Amino acid sequence: MTYCVGLLLNEGIVLLSDTRTNAGLDNISTYRKMFIFEEPGERVIAVLTAGSLSVSQTVIARLIEATDDNDPETRSIMRANTMLEVADIIGNTLLEVTTDIAAKMGRMSQQMATSTMIVAGQRRGGIMRMFLIYPEGNFIEATVDTPFLQIGEHKYGKPILDRIVRKETPISEARKAVLLSMDSTLRSNLSVGMPLDLCVIRADECKVGERTRIEANDPSFQKMSLAWSEALRKSFHDIDI
Amino acid sequence: MTYCVGLLLNEGIVLLSDTRTNAGLDNISTYRKMFIFEEPGERVIAVLTAGSLSVSQTVIARLIEATDDNDPETRSIMRANTMLEVADIIGNTLLEVTTDIAAKMGRMSQQMATSTMIVAGQRRGGIMRMFLIYPEGNFIEATVDTPFLQIGEHKYGKPILDRIVRKETPISEARKAVLLSMDSTLRSNLSVGMPLDLCVIRADECKVGERTRIEANDPSFQKMSLAWSEALRKSFHDIDI
Repeated sequence: MTYCVGLLLNEGIVLLSDTRTNAGLDNISTYRKMFIFEEPGERVIAVLTAGSLSVSQTVIARLIEATDDNDPETRSIMRANTMLEVADIIGNTLLEVTTDIAAKMGRMSQQMATSTMIVAGQRRGGIMRMFLIYPEGNFIEATVDTPFLQIGEHKYGKPILDRIVRKETPISEARKAVLLSMDSTLRSNLSVGMPLDLCVIRADECKVGERTRIEANDPSFQKMSLAWSEALRKSFHDIDI
Repeated sequence: MTYCVGLLLNEGIVLLSDTRTNAGLDNISTYRKMFIFEEPGERVIAVLTAGSLSVSQTVIARLIEATDDNDPETRSIMRANTMLEVADIIGNTLLEVTTDIAAKMGRMSQQMATSTMIVAGQRRGGIMRMFLIYPEGNFIEATVDTPFLQIGEHKYGKPILDRIVRKETPISEARKAVLLSMDSTLRSNLSVGMPLDLCVIRADECKVGERTRIEANDPSFQKMSLAWSEALRKSFHDIDI
C-alpha cells in the first residue's frame, strides 16, 4: 500500500508520499511515488500515485512521452492551458492505461489493477489547484472547506489533519502536520514505509520551493517522531476523565 | 459502520462500542452493539458486534435462546466450562447464522451479510480472555503482546492505542485510551456515532464492574474531547522540525 497526502493552503502546496510498494507481504520494494513536472517560473505540476505500480508507472511514462513529443496536436500536461486541463489529461491517460491493462489481465484473471492520483500545481497567471483523480479518470478538487487530499492508507493519519489543517495554516506548520500524519500511519501500518518524499511549492512561484527525501535514519524526523510520542503520552496522562 | 474496541489488561477488561448503524447514508439508526451475559460472581461474558445487523441480532437471539433452554444437551455460553468454549459456541452460531442468511440472500443477490465480534469475559476459577471472532467462525485471541482488539472502523483510533495501551495499563488510563480512540474515530468518520456503551470488568470479580451509556451531550466526555483537542494542538505547536 501507500500513503500520500497533499495540502492546498493560502501560502502554497505541501505534498508528502511514502515509497513502499509490495506484491504480497514477502515482496517489498522502494519506489518513488512523487513525480514533478516543472518549467520553473512558468508551471509546476506534482503527481502522487497510489495503487498498482504497473498502472502508475505506465501513466507517468505516457505523460513524459507526450511532453517530449513536439507535435502540437499531442495533448501534454506541460502545454495545457490550465490546471483543470492538466487534471483532465491525467484522468484520461489513467483511464486509458487502466483499460489497456484490464484487457490484458481479463484474459488471465478477474483482478483489476487500478491507481489513484493526487495532482497539484500552478501555471503562471493561474491559481494553485489540487485534484484527486480516481481510477475511472474523474476527479474531485480540494477546496477552502477541505484543503487536504489523501490517497492510499489514509485513515490512520486523518485525525491529525482534521484537527490542524486549515487553508490559513502556514507552510512551516503544514510540513509538520503532514509529517506527523505520516508518522501515525508508519507506526500503525507496515505497508507504508520510509523513506519519504516531501515537496513544497510556494504560491505564485510556479516552481518547486523544497524537495527533500527523508531517509529512515533522518535525525530530525526521528527527533520529531519521538517528541510527538512523548507529547502525546504527556497530554494523555494530563487529561482528566 | 461501527467501531468497537476491547482491552485485556492485568487489572481487567475494558470495552467500548458506538451505536450507529446505517443502511446506506440516508438510513441511520441507533442500535446497541454491546451485549452482556452475566451470573455475577460466577461468570461474565461481553459480546461486541460489527457488521450486518441482521446477522448480529440473530446470533445474539440464538445465544439467549440457548441460555434459556433447560435441555442440558443444548450448548450455551452460560453453561460452557471455559471462555475458549464460549468463543467456540459463538463462532459456530455466527457461522450458522451467516450461512442461513447467505442461502436466502443468494437467491436474490451476490451480496454477503457478515458480522465480526469481540467476545471477552471470565469464568470463576478461570482466567480473563478476549477473542475476535471472524465471520467464518474462527477466532484469534488477545495476548500479552497485543492486549487490544478492534472491529469495524479501526484505523482512525489505532495510533493512540498503539502508543498507550500495554498489559500493565491501569483501568483508569485504559478507560481514557478507549474513549480518546473513539473520539478520533467519531471526528473522522460519520458512520461511527454517539451514544457510546462502556463496560469495565475487573479481574476475578466475574461480574460487570461498570456499565455506562455515554450520550452525545455527556459533559465529561465533551470536556475530555475538548481537552484532548487542545492538548494535541498545543503539543503540535510546541514541536520543532
